[in-house]
Amino acid sequence: MNHCSAPLDILIRGGRLLTLAEDKEIIEDPLIGIRDGEILFIEEAHAPLVSLYAPKEVIHAEGSVILPGFINTHTHVPMVCFRGLADDLPLMDWLTNHIFPAERKHVNRKMVYAGAMLGIAEMLLSGTTTFCDGYFFESSVARAAHESGIRCVAGMGFLDEDVESVTEAQLARHMEAAEKFLGKWLPERPLITPALFCHSPYTCSPQTLRTVKEVARRHGVPFLIHVAETRDEREIIKDRYGYTPVNYLESLGVLDDMTVAVHCNWLNEGEIACLAANGVKVSHNPQSNMKLAAGVAPIPEMLACGIDVGLGTDGCASNNDHDMFGEMDSAAKLHKVIKRDPSIMDARTVLTMATMGGARVLGLKRLIGSIEVGKKADLIIVGLNKPHLTPVYNICSHLVYAASGADVQTSIINGRIVMKDRRLLTVDLENAMDTVTRISQDIKLSR
Amino acid sequence: MNHCSAPLDILIRGGRLLTLAEDKEIIEDPLIGIRDGEILFIEEAHAPLVSLYAPKEVIHAEGSVILPGFINTHTHVPMVCFRGLADDLPLMDWLTNHIFPAERKHVNRKMVYAGAMLGIAEMLLSGTTTFCDGYFFESSVARAAHESGIRCVAGMGFLDEDVESVTEAQLARHMEAAEKFLGKWLPERPLITPALFCHSPYTCSPQTLRTVKEVARRHGVPFLIHVAETRDEREIIKDRYGYTPVNYLESLGVLDDMTVAVHCNWLNEGEIACLAANGVKVSHNPQSNMKLAAGVAPIPEMLACGIDVGLGTDGCASNNDHDMFGEMDSAAKLHKVIKRDPSIMDARTVLTMATMGGARVLGLKRLIGSIEVGKKADLIIVGLNKPHLTPVYNICSHLVYAASGADVQTSIINGRIVMKDRRLLTVDLENAMDTVTRISQDIKLSR
Repeated sequence: MNHCSAPLDILIRGGRLLTLAEDKEIIEDPLIGIRDGEILFIEEAHAPLVSLYAPKEVIHAEGSVILPGFINTHTHVPMVCFRGLADDLPLMDWLTNHIFPAERKHVNRKMVYAGAMLGIAEMLLSGTTTFCDGYFFESSVARAAHESGIRCVAGMGFLDEDVESVTEAQLARHMEAAEKFLGKWLPERPLITPALFCHSPYTCSPQTLRTVKEVARRHGVPFLIHVAETRDEREIIKDRYGYTPVNYLESLGVLDDMTVAVHCNWLNEGEIACLAANGVKVSHNPQSNMKLAAGVAPIPEMLACGIDVGLGTDGCASNNDHDMFGEMDSAAKLHKVIKRDPSIMDARTVLTMATMGGARVLGLKRLIGSIEVGKKADLIIVGLNKPHLTPVYNICSHLVYAASGADVQTSIINGRIVMKDRRLLTVDLENAMDTVTRISQDIKLSR
Repeated sequence: MNHCSAPLDILIRGGRLLTLAEDKEIIEDPLIGIRDGEILFIEEAHAPLVSLYAPKEVIHAEGSVILPGFINTHTHVPMVCFRGLADDLPLMDWLTNHIFPAERKHVNRKMVYAGAMLGIAEMLLSGTTTFCDGYFFESSVARAAHESGIRCVAGMGFLDEDVESVTEAQLARHMEAAEKFLGKWLPERPLITPALFCHSPYTCSPQTLRTVKEVARRHGVPFLIHVAETRDEREIIKDRYGYTPVNYLESLGVLDDMTVAVHCNWLNEGEIACLAANGVKVSHNPQSNMKLAAGVAPIPEMLACGIDVGLGTDGCASNNDHDMFGEMDSAAKLHKVIKRDPSIMDARTVLTMATMGGARVLGLKRLIGSIEVGKKADLIIVGLNKPHLTPVYNICSHLVYAASGADVQTSIINGRIVMKDRRLLTVDLENAMDTVTRISQDIKLSR
C-alpha cells in the first residue's frame, strides 16, 4: 500500500463501516482515506501508523457507525417557511386555502433562498448529504446548496395556470426559462445537478410536459414529476385524457430512465410494469403520503419489478421535517402493517433505499450512495454510545428503527466536513433561523 | 399573591407553557412555582421579581415550550436488552424462535433491573415521566424506577404454561405472588403504583384471569392485559371459548374502569361498545403494531365512544425505542392514511393522548397529565431554537410532527429535576449502558 504521495485530506479511523456496497458490507475498525473529494482507500487496519498517511485531519469514529449520507429524493425545501402553518386539514382545504395563497403572497427569491438555507441546515444536521428539490425560483435553492456545500439536484418548477389553453408563447417561455436555468447550472458547479420539475400531470398541460421533457432530454438532466399522488388525481386524468396517469405520461413519451416519478400511490399492475419497462425511477414519500392521507404506494411490488426506488421527505408543509431516519422508520413499518407481513421492507432494504436507491433514482449511482474506493466522499458518522442505541446486535435495524437525526455526529460531503460534533461548519445557523423567523412573522400578519 | 411563606423548590420562568389543561391551554412567558413535588402556582408574569419567591433553583425556559411529561402506557422495559436482536421476521418465528428462547435463557432479576435502568434512562432523556410496565421479576423494574425517580405503574406479569389444565395449586401460587408484590409496593413508594398484568386471553387460563383480577380489584390497582393484538388471537379465542376476545373477557367479569386493554387492534363495533360500557381504558401502540404487522386499532372509533386512550411504545423488541415523539407522529399519520382523512387524529388529540389520556388510562388523572396548580410537578422543557423546529406557527404540530426525544432539554418528576441540559441526574448512564452491553454479549454468545 502506498497512498502517501500527497497528504490525505481526511483520515477516518475506528468504529464500524457500513459500506452499503454490494460486497464487503461491514468493515470493523476501518481506515478510510479521503483526498480531493473522493474515497482514496478503505482498509481494515489494526493499530496502524496513522502518521504514515499524513492526513490534514483525523476523525476518530470509535463507538460509531460510518455510512453513506442519506439521499433525500424529493422535497420542496423552501417550504420550511410554512412548517406547521396548516396541519390536519382536508387535502384540498390545506392546498387551496392555506398553502397556495401563502405561496402566492410570500414566495420570492429571498424567501426561497432563506428557506433553502434553513432546510439545508436541518438536512446537514440529520445526515442528509444529497437532496433533490423542486420549487419556484430554484436558482436560489441551487445557490444556497452551492454555498452550504450540500449535493443537490435542483429541479426548476413548471406548471400552467390553465392546462386547457396553453399558448405557443407560454411554451416558448417555459423552454427559454428551462434553457436559461440549465445553462446557468450545468457547467458550473460539480455538486449541483440542475433538473426540470413539472408539478404534475393535472397541473401541467400535455404540451408543457412534452416541451419540458424535451429540454431535459436534450441536456441529459433528470425530469421530475409528482405522479398519482391521490385517487382524485387518477380520476381527473382519466376524465381529461382517457388514461391512467402513468399511461397518459407514457402516451406523451415523457417516461424514461431520467424521469423521477414522485409518490406513485395509485398505480395498477399495468402501470407498475409500464414504469419498469421505461426504466422510470420512483421517489417514495411515506410520511407525507400518510399525513395528507394521500395513499400508500405499492413499493414492495415496484421493488419486485426491479424499479429503482428512493426515499424522500417531501416538503415541510406535509411532513413536517427533513429527517430521513423518521422516513426510513415509517417506510419500514407502514408497508408491514398494510401488507400484514412483518418481514417485508426489512431494515436493510429501507436503508438501501435511503442511500444507494436514492443514488440510482437521481442518476448518481457512480458517484454516491455507497462508500467505495473511487466514489465521492459523502458520508456520515452516527454515534452509537447512547441509551436508545444500546445494546448493538444489528446496525441496520438500529439505524432504521431506533436512531434519529440528532444521533448524527459528523457529516462529510465531497470530502469536505460540513458538520462536526453537531456543529455546522458551512451554514450560519443563527442567521438562517432568524431570517426564516422574520419571514414567518410576515406570513402570520398577513393571514 | 403570597406564596412566599416557605421557599420554592423550583421556579420556571419564561418560554411558553402548554398546560394541556382544559382551560387556559397556552400561557406565554409564565412563572411556574414548584414546591414539595407539586405545582404551587402558575402565573402570567412580565418582568417579575423572581427574588420574591426565594426559589432554590430557577430554570430559564426562554425559547422553549414547557409541557406535561409523556405517559407511556405500555412497555416491557427490560426488553431493551433484546433491542434489535430479531427484526423483520414473521410474528410467530420472531416470538417462538427468538424472543421466547432469549427470555427463557436470559431473563433474571439482574437482567430485568439492568434493562429497566437503561430503558428508564432512555425515557428520561426523551421526555417520558411516567411509564406503565409489565414483565417478569417486576419488583426489579419497580426498584429501578424508584431509584431513578421516574413515576411508574409496575405490572407483575402472569401467564400459564398450559391454559387448559391449570391446577388449584397454581392459582394459589399466582394469588400469593400477586399479594406479595402488592404488599411490597403498595404502601411504600409514592411514585410507584403496583399493578397486575395478565399477558393475554390466550396465554392465561380463565381461572388465572379471574383470580388475578380479583386480587387487583381487592387492592384497587390497575389490571393490565394485551387484548386482540392479532387476528390470529381473535380466532384462537373464538375457537377455544366461543367468544371474541373482549366479549370473552367480559364474560369472565374482568373488565372495569381499572382494566387497561393493550393493543385492541381487532375489535368489532360491539366490542368497542363493550369496552366503553365497562369503562375499560385502552393503550394504543401504533409503532409496535405496525412493525409486527399486527393490525391497526380503531382508535378514532374508540375516542368517538368516549373510551380513554393512551399511547404506548411497547417493548424495545418490537419498536425499537421508547421515544414518545415518534409514537405520536406515527399515531397521527397512521390513522390518517388508513381512514383516508387527513383531519383525524390531529396534533392536539395525539398530544393529549400522550399526556392527559395516559393519566386517565392509568388512573392517575388527578395527579398528572396536565400542568395545573395542585397537580404533581411532572413536566418537560423542549427547546425550540433549532432548525427543524423553526419557524413556530403551532406548538402542538411541532411537538407531534417535527420534534424528537433529543429536543427535550430538562425533565422534572414529582418536583425533582431528573434531567437537565440533556444530562441525567438520577441514573448512572455509563454503568447502565455497560451492564446491558455485557448482558448482550452473553446473549450473542448463546445463540
